[in-house]
Amino acid sequence: MTDNLARQLAFLDEADRLKGILRATPVLAGARPENSAEHSWHVALYALVLADQAAPGVSIDRVIRMLLLHDLVEIDAGDMPIHLAHDQAAQAAREQAAATRLFGLLPPEQGAAFRALWDEFEAGETPDAIFARALDRVQPLGLNLASGGGSWIEYGVTFAQLESRVGQKVARGAPRLWDAMRERARAWFAARG
Amino acid sequence: MTDNLARQLAFLDEADRLKGILRATPVLAGARPENSAEHSWHVALYALVLADQAAPGVSIDRVIRMLLLHDLVEIDAGDMPIHLAHDQAAQAAREQAAATRLFGLLPPEQGAAFRALWDEFEAGETPDAIFARALDRVQPLGLNLASGGGSWIEYGVTFAQLESRVGQKVARGAPRLWDAMRERARAWFAARG
Repeated sequence: MTDNLARQLAFLDEADRLKGILRATPVLAGARPENSAEHSWHVALYALVLADQAAPGVSIDRVIRMLLLHDLVEIDAGDMPIHLAHDQAAQAAREQAAATRLFGLLPPEQGAAFRALWDEFEAGETPDAIFARALDRVQPLGLNLASGGGSWIEYGVTFAQLESRVGQKVARGAPRLWDAMRERARAWFAARG
Repeated sequence: MTDNLARQLAFLDEADRLKGILRATPVLAGARPENSAEHSWHVALYALVLADQAAPGVSIDRVIRMLLLHDLVEIDAGDMPIHLAHDQAAQAAREQAAATRLFGLLPPEQGAAFRALWDEFEAGETPDAIFARALDRVQPLGLNLASGGGSWIEYGVTFAQLESRVGQKVARGAPRLWDAMRERARAWFAARG
């Protein structure tokens, strides 16, 4: 076996651990928490299905690649729920160290390319990253609605907080999608009173 | 909300159920069975990482799209372990009916495009489908090795059976990858005696 292939297989073996990182959002109508591996699949599927919500010029295939990689750092850094107050600088530092270790398992040229894609996602400034981040924020809404509130209840989230923590990023990357999801969420918050 | 978007969101809501379909292969060093959603993510990551194992002309982005969709039919048809004897024609019929229902949730043009990609994967005749199927077969090997045998022990699999049920498909789509994985598997079977 070549050294490159051995490194690639070591990276893919290590990636299995993302299946053990639990998120705040429930799956299967509230049966259990979602893990970050199945979330990564679901949000990549969002990109494939909702390609027509992207701004002109967005490459859906690059968005999908970003989304397949975007949460790998949680293997070392854990998932930090968006509605949980936390030290964002400390979490970002943990994620940077995780990216260095995890992408460093790969052959150097490939590891650098993946790291650049992850850095682009994190920075959220290119059209591809803006769309990817919009989908990453919007996917938990469907799960929360399907499970009777999910992480909104767990963290006591208000509709105004949802608009500021989630809506702004979704609206930036996929404004028509946010219009639709906002109405669904508003109906839920209104019914809850 | 447009009718198209409503259909797309209904499809994405339904896709959540793939997280509840359990496979024979264990994850996290044997902690629990893998589900088909996290498997779909992991095997899509295999395609991204092992792109250099593909034959010339293979489109890795099409392979990734296929792999994101390839197991959705299991929401209705369930997962049939490769090492478990079963009625393959009956399972194929269940999967066809599932594809009709699930891709039928989407806007018609998009549903037809996804169905065509899934049909291509199932037929396994194009270079993209041959590579995608090779990865789908090889991914459980790493998990079985990491968990002390996994589904090989559960189903009493021999090395000769692994070569015929798994090796042939992997070797067809990714021959150098099979050379490497075959050696890893052979060492495990030899040590077990």
